[in-house]
Amino acid sequence: MGVDSKRVEADSSAVSTPETPFNLTLSIGPVLLQPLEIHRVCLPPQKTTFQKLKHRLSEIFFPDDPFHRFKNQTFLRKVVLGLHCLFPILQWVPSYSLSTFRSDLVSGLTIASLAIPQGISYAKLANLPPIIGLYSSFVPPLIYSLLGSSKHLGVGPVSIASLVMGTMLSETVSSTHESDLYLRLAFTATFFAGLFQASLGLFRLGFIIDFLSKATLVGFMAGAAVIVSLQQLKGLLGIVHFTKKMQIIPVMSSVFGHTKEWSWKTIVLGFGFLIFLLTARLTSLKRPKLFWISAAAPLTSVILSTLLVYLLKSELHGVSVIGELPDGLNPPSANILYFHGPHLGLAIKAGIVTGILSLTEGIAVGRTFASLQNYQVDGNKEMMAIGLMNMVGSCSSCYVTTGSFSRSAVNYNAGAKTAFSNIVMAGAVLVTLLFLMPLFYHTPNLVLAAIIITAVIGLIDYNAAFLLWKLDKLEFLACLCSFFGVLFISVPMGLAISVGVSVFKILLHVTRPNTVALGNIPGTQIYQNVSRYENASRVPCFLILGIESPIYFANSTYLQERILRWVWEEEERLKEKEENLKCVVLDMTAVTAIDSSGIDAIYELRKTLLNRSVQLVLVNPVGSVMEKLHHSKILDLFGTNQLYLTVGEAVTDISSSWKA
Amino acid sequence: MGVDSKRVEADSSAVSTPETPFNLTLSIGPVLLQPLEIHRVCLPPQKTTFQKLKHRLSEIFFPDDPFHRFKNQTFLRKVVLGLHCLFPILQWVPSYSLSTFRSDLVSGLTIASLAIPQGISYAKLANLPPIIGLYSSFVPPLIYSLLGSSKHLGVGPVSIASLVMGTMLSETVSSTHESDLYLRLAFTATFFAGLFQASLGLFRLGFIIDFLSKATLVGFMAGAAVIVSLQQLKGLLGIVHFTKKMQIIPVMSSVFGHTKEWSWKTIVLGFGFLIFLLTARLTSLKRPKLFWISAAAPLTSVILSTLLVYLLKSELHGVSVIGELPDGLNPPSANILYFHGPHLGLAIKAGIVTGILSLTEGIAVGRTFASLQNYQVDGNKEMMAIGLMNMVGSCSSCYVTTGSFSRSAVNYNAGAKTAFSNIVMAGAVLVTLLFLMPLFYHTPNLVLAAIIITAVIGLIDYNAAFLLWKLDKLEFLACLCSFFGVLFISVPMGLAISVGVSVFKILLHVTRPNTVALGNIPGTQIYQNVSRYENASRVPCFLILGIESPIYFANSTYLQERILRWVWEEEERLKEKEENLKCVVLDMTAVTAIDSSGIDAIYELRKTLLNRSVQLVLVNPVGSVMEKLHHSKILDLFGTNQLYLTVGEAVTDISSSWKA
Repeated sequence: MGVDSKRVEADSSAVSTPETPFNLTLSIGPVLLQPLEIHRVCLPPQKTTFQKLKHRLSEIFFPDDPFHRFKNQTFLRKVVLGLHCLFPILQWVPSYSLSTFRSDLVSGLTIASLAIPQGISYAKLANLPPIIGLYSSFVPPLIYSLLGSSKHLGVGPVSIASLVMGTMLSETVSSTHESDLYLRLAFTATFFAGLFQASLGLFRLGFIIDFLSKATLVGFMAGAAVIVSLQQLKGLLGIVHFTKKMQIIPVMSSVFGHTKEWSWKTIVLGFGFLIFLLTARLTSLKRPKLFWISAAAPLTSVILSTLLVYLLKSELHGVSVIGELPDGLNPPSANILYFHGPHLGLAIKAGIVTGILSLTEGIAVGRTFASLQNYQVDGNKEMMAIGLMNMVGSCSSCYVTTGSFSRSAVNYNAGAKTAFSNIVMAGAVLVTLLFLMPLFYHTPNLVLAAIIITAVIGLIDYNAAFLLWKLDKLEFLACLCSFFGVLFISVPMGLAISVGVSVFKILLHVTRPNTVALGNIPGTQIYQNVSRYENASRVPCFLILGIESPIYFANSTYLQERILRWVWEEEERLKEKEENLKCVVLDMTAVTAIDSSGIDAIYELRKTLLNRSVQLVLVNPVGSVMEKLHHSKILDLFGTNQLYLTVGEAVTDISSSWKA
Repeated sequence: MGVDSKRVEADSSAVSTPETPFNLTLSIGPVLLQPLEIHRVCLPPQKTTFQKLKHRLSEIFFPDDPFHRFKNQTFLRKVVLGLHCLFPILQWVPSYSLSTFRSDLVSGLTIASLAIPQGISYAKLANLPPIIGLYSSFVPPLIYSLLGSSKHLGVGPVSIASLVMGTMLSETVSSTHESDLYLRLAFTATFFAGLFQASLGLFRLGFIIDFLSKATLVGFMAGAAVIVSLQQLKGLLGIVHFTKKMQIIPVMSSVFGHTKEWSWKTIVLGFGFLIFLLTARLTSLKRPKLFWISAAAPLTSVILSTLLVYLLKSELHGVSVIGELPDGLNPPSANILYFHGPHLGLAIKAGIVTGILSLTEGIAVGRTFASLQNYQVDGNKEMMAIGLMNMVGSCSSCYVTTGSFSRSAVNYNAGAKTAFSNIVMAGAVLVTLLFLMPLFYHTPNLVLAAIIITAVIGLIDYNAAFLLWKLDKLEFLACLCSFFGVLFISVPMGLAISVGVSVFKILLHVTRPNTVALGNIPGTQIYQNVSRYENASRVPCFLILGIESPIYFANSTYLQERILRWVWEEEERLKEKEENLKCVVLDMTAVTAIDSSGIDAIYELRKTLLNRSVQLVLVNPVGSVMEKLHHSKILDLFGTNQLYLTVGEAVTDISSSWKA
């Protein structure tokens, strides 16, 4: 083990004795800085299979080493730390001050003014009774404030998860004809979403949500926003007979097939409020300090429109309104969860899909605001918090909730300091549920449609899509697939196609990896891509190749063929100069893994090259690759003098051996 | 562009003027060989999107640059080369000599003696009439000898493809009750297998078969061999009522549920011939020169057993025999191909699965023997040859054929020089078909069962499985999944699970990549893994990390967290020594690609580190990564002095800037 100064060389241009503290190096032109010793490539320290497995598993499941805080602590301290871990509220409650409370109170009331109209609107998006949206803004925020580690997350129903749940359940069960079953399935899907989310956190499988790439999400969000907005034309135009389908074609034919149902009163009022809300949103976007304008606009619209409809009752007779909402707190729903029957599969599927989507949104929002104030959000803990809040929610008449971007942004801007703002919001919703429900009787549906459109329009991120186009065409393609998949096929299919494209991109990179020819930068020991660095020059008689990928079954044949093509291309090039290719050097620095097919490929390559009297030399194989080369006995074939630590040493040593 | 010698430095230990041909470098201890210039990282040469796309596509589809031979040639020469490409037979026919013919004749006759009994046996494995196996050993070899580029490939039906086709078709259509439909579907599946294979070759999508990793194949082959051998117990024990299922459980219950049907005469004869065949196989394995023993053994067994049954007709009455076989050449079957109807999907599916499997076998066998004699087999051309031979075959009463390992090995050992040996074999089969068919009337089925078992037993490769276990536990797991999947679930499912595990392995490597801390090897500019190279020592105030994977959406969050963990671990370590971490150096040599999530991760990481007053420096990003960093404008944040070509230069430059 370790590097041996095995072969010490001395040629005319370099003289050295490694033990002497003073070295005198004399060098001429390009051989400046020639290394004086050849360093041996060594195997990684030996480990048993069990040790390796343990290390690998801990890297997979505990990359953040969550137990390091417990090391070298007294038992009592360990218990306290454990409780802090389970209930992050214990971390901030002891030091909670009056000034913090004042900030949280203001921000809590601000998000409540946004949460109440949003709750009602999003519940309608999921084809649920509006009251469920309010229930969902009461219990889950309370649970989250106990368990969540983010200070700014505003919890409640969100548009994407509502849309997806609505779509998936409506495909099988009608929300109007079988409303009881529909409601039961919605709660059950929420339960499974929570169970799935909490399990991901508990079993530290959070990386599953990492497979929703940014490209996928950009396309998906934009597609969902378009679909949701088009759906709202029902409310905005006052159409009574509207399709239950979500794809763009049936929706558009519903809109233009029922022009007789268009009601001009609804249209004027609806677009009026839409313009008001969009203007408020734009103002807040341009001046972040005026965030309260967009925060207060929805509630203002609701109050205004309700007053209008109430006062002009006779004039605005045809405008559809929410109607009666039940008074009182969340009724329990644990007893109506649907655990056996023909629709159980549907509920589980809808739960998992909405669970993944809402988790992705919640975690991303949490991270965004944490990074703005430089604190860390623990992904796995967040998953458990969101999961538990959905499981509890499903037993108290709530549907899927998570951290919402719009609420969290308002919360952050309103100066929230801790998760206490969620408790304040829940308090405001509590008051609404107990005393204010009759006031919503005359709230017109058109204002809910306008609120939804204003909320989802922010999901269309042109800039991100443009950046994707500039950065990577394949990523942009994934984004497009996702967008059009959602628009024309279905929400889950669009998502699936896009995840497929993203995974295919990874596999393509592995299947067709880059190989580059390296050349020496004169006067240095640096070897770089000759097509990129103009002053890097090829070394005579050598072909130095950098391989930029692990060598796997999926690319071993390709790499073998591609390297042989490099060889004959180089041979043809050299033939013109009447030179011979004598040695192929593979720089393995970027070959981060190898499997049995890869080892076979290297073996075959070595044989083919030897038949052409060309030597094959490997440079700097990483630890795991070195280990596998060793286990497969292929290392014995190469011996120590065909394995080098740097390209420079390989070139120097081999050329001097030719001279000798 | 290009490397600028932008900042030339001189400190007490190194003095240099790059232009002078003689350089005097004085250095002390660890700073020996300190670089004197800092090299700038440059962008790859600018290319348009179209150029990049073209380059990428040509690397994906034409890695072997098939058109290079046509460059700088006259038109006539191009036509000749084109014909050579299409019909490799034209390459060797002009120089064909009598001595080559003699070798090919001997080897052709040798493989014919193997091909005839194998053809009959494998057809039975696919639940087809035995004569179809002989037809399939006549037309396809002729087509292959025109189009194929391998000199040693022995073409004909093979066990795996026969087994899979038999399994897949029998699940829906009974080969006994609906024998006509079954036959039509078998020819149609063969047609689609050929179409699929030829398309893979034509559209250069051969990498699809690369997704069958070695581990998958080892497990699959072993599982198939066990299943096939167990199926043969029907013939060996003389059982009449036998399950049509392939899984191990129904087969074993068939065997032990019908002990009353066991016939001792069949058992004695069957195991006698099995032992004879296995002994012959073992002899040839131990002494490759005696290859003809195992080559001739099957035909010898057929002749001997037929004679026995014929002569002892009265004694061996109960032994089941092949029975009447029709005389004459392959009847046309193009007219009975099944192109519409309820079973079309089944035929296409069976075609694609058998197509992939037989292609994998054919290509692998071709490559194996080509590598033994140092010639190249062109994968795409082989795919087209095998595909066309199956398409033509499906129109002349043949089922799926490919290059068979056993035949090719015999062909190679018997001294075949060109594909003409296939023509000789086809000639021998022709004579058999025309004149010798009545001789097979009394051939007992038990000898066919013994032949099949002897053939498939070679597919169980213990050594390969053991090597997989030693090399990589996850690969071994894929192998086991494939093996048990085939045994207990079904052949296609076993295959699918195993491909899934193999792909998961690639994704896992990307999702949880390695990060290593690098240290300086004293007296050099080499930076290596500190946990692997004992004499590599960490540089004070620096944390140098090597990232061993592309940075993608699937790992960007992980890498960010993991790097921050490295940082706080290092900070804790340094705190004990009362030192400060000032700079994190990311060695990006092995980061072979990056996507938008990866860029975000680097941006976030930089911000987080800056907040802790730690500088982030990138080293040696590869061309494509550099380009994306540039397009995303993140490069402007870093500026040129936080981007270095080597770790050594980064460390030298930054520490000297601290001193200044």
